[in-house]
Amino acid sequence: MTGTLIGVGLGPGDPDLMTLKAARAIGAAGVVAYPALPGTDSFARSIAADLIRSDADEIVIEVPMTKAREPAQAAYDVGAGRIAEALAAGRDVAVLCEGDPFFYGSFMYLHARLSDRFPVEVIPGITSVSAATARAALPLVARNEVLTVLPGPLESDALASRIDAAEAVVIMKVGRHLGRIRDVLAARGLVDRALYVERATMETERILPLADAPEAAPYFSLILVSKGSDPWL
Amino acid sequence: MTGTLIGVGLGPGDPDLMTLKAARAIGAAGVVAYPALPGTDSFARSIAADLIRSDADEIVIEVPMTKAREPAQAAYDVGAGRIAEALAAGRDVAVLCEGDPFFYGSFMYLHARLSDRFPVEVIPGITSVSAATARAALPLVARNEVLTVLPGPLESDALASRIDAAEAVVIMKVGRHLGRIRDVLAARGLVDRALYVERATMETERILPLADAPEAAPYFSLILVSKGSDPWL
Ligand SMILES: C[S@@+](CC[C@H](N)C(=O)[O-])C[C@H]1O[C@@H](n2cnc3c(N)ncnc32)[C@H](O)[C@@H]1O
Ligand SMILES: C[S@@+](CC[C@H](N)C(=O)[O-])C[C@H]1O[C@@H](n2cnc3c(N)ncnc32)[C@H](O)[C@@H]1O
Repeated sequence: MTGTLIGVGLGPGDPDLMTLKAARAIGAAGVVAYPALPGTDSFARSIAADLIRSDADEIVIEVPMTKAREPAQAAYDVGAGRIAEALAAGRDVAVLCEGDPFFYGSFMYLHARLSDRFPVEVIPGITSVSAATARAALPLVARNEVLTVLPGPLESDALASRIDAAEAVVIMKVGRHLGRIRDVLAARGLVDRALYVERATMETERILPLADAPEAAPYFSLILVSKGSDPWL
Repeated sequence: MTGTLIGVGLGPGDPDLMTLKAARAIGAAGVVAYPALPGTDSFARSIAADLIRSDADEIVIEVPMTKAREPAQAAYDVGAGRIAEALAAGRDVAVLCEGDPFFYGSFMYLHARLSDRFPVEVIPGITSVSAATARAALPLVARNEVLTVLPGPLESDALASRIDAAEAVVIMKVGRHLGRIRDVLAARGLVDRALYVERATMETERILPLADAPEAAPYFSLILVSKGSDPWL
């Protein structure tokens, strides 16, 4: 009997935004695994910290943030190998995932390496998108509106055409692309309809009109654009 | 002192997919409000049933499912009026919302009517999209992939162009549009990359290749299309 690979969505930062199911899975886990930037504490682990058993074995996957993909891939190879050992020994492994595991989550890199050999269960999590719209009190999409989620690193032409084809747009992974994204939105008169959301639901959360956003955005930031609909729907 | 309008995301059906914060808010609520189809039990209420206080006042908003928008708008006017009375009397009102309140949720209709007069708090919920991808074990979007969420009632040309511009597509509100949506996907060779997900995380959940989906889809169904990326990411 092999163990089960459990992808546990933790939500966007506030531990209270974990699901009842996720909280139970972490409390039951004999082995937890999570990504961390080399030399830093894991953000995913910090969300779940109060629930992790003191006798749990912990597998830290140190993923370097490089532009080239190979170093990260090698790190996931190593991490998947250690998780596979635990699974093969019949132990379940709970992988801690910020937000929702299958929504731009690093869990996908482990899933791709392990799902053909081991049973998998995924516990969905609150996405940063749901968290940001809730905190900004911004209704995202209603009725027959189209929502498009765009990664900020996309080139400007690709961003522009997809923004034009949607009623609501979320731009993830903003970081150093902020200025360029703002230019794309400005060219379509949308800066006044855009909000900048940094570290949603964390203690250092900031929500600003995009026009007032800082030049250098941190990793945990996104932009919400709502072209708006009838206020009474 | 007026009360606070609290939009409580309940997740897609399984009560364990409520957040810790949502569970606490419902347990504390002296007034709960929720939509229901006339003459039927409210689905949102059924998710939260075990947590609603026996002494809570309940405001049922009976929303007819008509093609014309006016009857539903009139129902939300009446419901918002009753909620406003409780808020004006200084009582908080927890509005129970299937999934995430600001993601195609009916809470938006109450928010539009009340947010200019009363303080609002929104507790995000697990969307049907996160639930469906988790249950289907289908990684949705990674890296710089674009996700587009489309309402099924959109006309076929609009569906087609937006499907072509995304790497991953979710089609909501499938219902009687299923056959037409399948034709649009077939024309682009995507039927084999599409999953049909009915009542995700409920006891009657069904997940099928789109090719095997029933002709008549129920209200709680959606379609996931993933054009896929490198399996090792
Ligand atoms: C690798 S993706 C992970 C997304 C996550 N799995 C989710 O469900 O939201 C990282 C990006 O998500 C966004 N993000 C995640 N958490 C956030 C938060 N609390 N506030 C703002 N943006 C956040 C940022 O755009 C960040 O660059
Ligand atoms: C009015 S929208 C509400 C969406 C909800 N607020 C959310 O966050 O997912 C209703 C549509 O959501 C989708 N849906 C909601 N719950 C679902 C479930 N458990 N399984 C499959 N689809 C669901 C269906 O496409 C349905 O037509």
